[in-house]
Amino acid sequence: MTRISWIASYPKSGNTWLRSMLTAYIGGAPAESLRGLQQLIPDIHPMIAEGGVPPWDDDGSYLVKTHFLPDVPLLRLYRDLSRKAVYIVRNPRDVLLSSLRMMHISRDDTAACRRIAEGFIAHESFFADRGRIGIGSWTENLKAWSSPDIVRRSFPDIEILTVRYEDMRGDPVGEFTEIVKFLELGRPVRDRDIQLAVDGSTIDRMREMEKKDKAGRKPPPVTRWAGKEPGNAFSFIGEGKQGQSLAFMGQDIEDAYRERLRDGSEFAALAARFGYDH
Amino acid sequence: MTRISWIASYPKSGNTWLRSMLTAYIGGAPAESLRGLQQLIPDIHPMIAEGGVPPWDDDGSYLVKTHFLPDVPLLRLYRDLSRKAVYIVRNPRDVLLSSLRMMHISRDDTAACRRIAEGFIAHESFFADRGRIGIGSWTENLKAWSSPDIVRRSFPDIEILTVRYEDMRGDPVGEFTEIVKFLELGRPVRDRDIQLAVDGSTIDRMREMEKKDKAGRKPPPVTRWAGKEPGNAFSFIGEGKQGQSLAFMGQDIEDAYRERLRDGSEFAALAARFGYDH
Repeated sequence: MTRISWIASYPKSGNTWLRSMLTAYIGGAPAESLRGLQQLIPDIHPMIAEGGVPPWDDDGSYLVKTHFLPDVPLLRLYRDLSRKAVYIVRNPRDVLLSSLRMMHISRDDTAACRRIAEGFIAHESFFADRGRIGIGSWTENLKAWSSPDIVRRSFPDIEILTVRYEDMRGDPVGEFTEIVKFLELGRPVRDRDIQLAVDGSTIDRMREMEKKDKAGRKPPPVTRWAGKEPGNAFSFIGEGKQGQSLAFMGQDIEDAYRERLRDGSEFAALAARFGYDH
Repeated sequence: MTRISWIASYPKSGNTWLRSMLTAYIGGAPAESLRGLQQLIPDIHPMIAEGGVPPWDDDGSYLVKTHFLPDVPLLRLYRDLSRKAVYIVRNPRDVLLSSLRMMHISRDDTAACRRIAEGFIAHESFFADRGRIGIGSWTENLKAWSSPDIVRRSFPDIEILTVRYEDMRGDPVGEFTEIVKFLELGRPVRDRDIQLAVDGSTIDRMREMEKKDKAGRKPPPVTRWAGKEPGNAFSFIGEGKQGQSLAFMGQDIEDAYRERLRDGSEFAALAARFGYDH
């Protein structure tokens, strides 16, 4: 029977970093490029867009990245095959700011930043139409994946490990060791392999991996971004910052965000539970 | 057991038009908006992006739109459930020119048009990286879906009806009647219902449906297209033109295209087989 372990998160929460460490750990060497991560630990989103799908009918064991909520219909295929999930949670301040880079918005473009921030503050989501995409808001995604009762409605036999991005940054060796042990990757956990994985996935190293992707990529047929090459001005890999203020967009934005942290909502409760309430 | 009938085509070949007629026929009234087509005849591409998937484990009968090649891994789920496929083929000249609108390229932007046309002439594809997306080139898509032997490797029990877009334009009532009979939709085929479906799906009517989608849609959070609202300048629904010349981009482009029609390739053979060799 196939065994699936999910590497799950809301977008912009450190999923690629963890996949990079896991790829280095499993493969014995860091991936050459970000695209290389797709081989050992596929991201289900580009995979399905290409008509692919994680195997469900062989005897293999697979690690698969997903941003989906556990109850989307597609994942019903993996109901009895899903054995583990590592869920990464990150301070929503930094998730929001990282999403700006993903959308190719410069911090100098205050009006555009404010529009995204206002949407996030209102809906805890940086997607224009969050209901459509099966990922939910930051709150919905975290609420579902961090609640064993909710996840087990979709995957009855699953065990879940929730990891804070900030703790991974603070003690990558310790946190990654815990993740590797949890995932039961089928061999003794050796400190040397852990260290190789962590050292092979520093931010500098991951930026080099991203450069290799871009060097091998043909330019897009049409330049939609007003004459800019989209990939060069905005890198996918950020600087891994933590607890950033939103005040550069205006103090009113920072104040509105702080107000959300004490408004008694599920967002506020989850932010407090994970130490993001300041 | 679930029964799936595929409404298949390469992109920009008339699939939405056929779905509109089928929706009006099955539902007894034309859809209000293009988005409304998703309810009766879902498009698998946005569906899976949102974590959805056509049912595979109930006793329903479903019509599903796809641009995928029949052998992509995702469709293996439907191996024994796929009973029918209608495949729409369209003159690649018009497919190419329709793709320009989809990419929001004006015919006045000759340089951009030429770039897309050169790519299509070289690779019979308007995707930057056709190998990645599971759809293949115009040639690969048509070759696979128009060959019962190839399709039956993926769907052993399937019957296929291949329809030319140009024939649908020339005699919509006759062609649509044949399609409806082929699909065995479970009730007597009445001329009145056919006429209602055809009349409800004229190009003018479909443009109205597209307008309703746009009226209900929030503006995108960021305007990536250099200050233009992408949706307003370029409509999804075209004018249904046929056999258009490429000479407006330069006679060299038209000449290069004609050269492809007689170069002995699979592309040339398929173009000739479907009457597109001029």
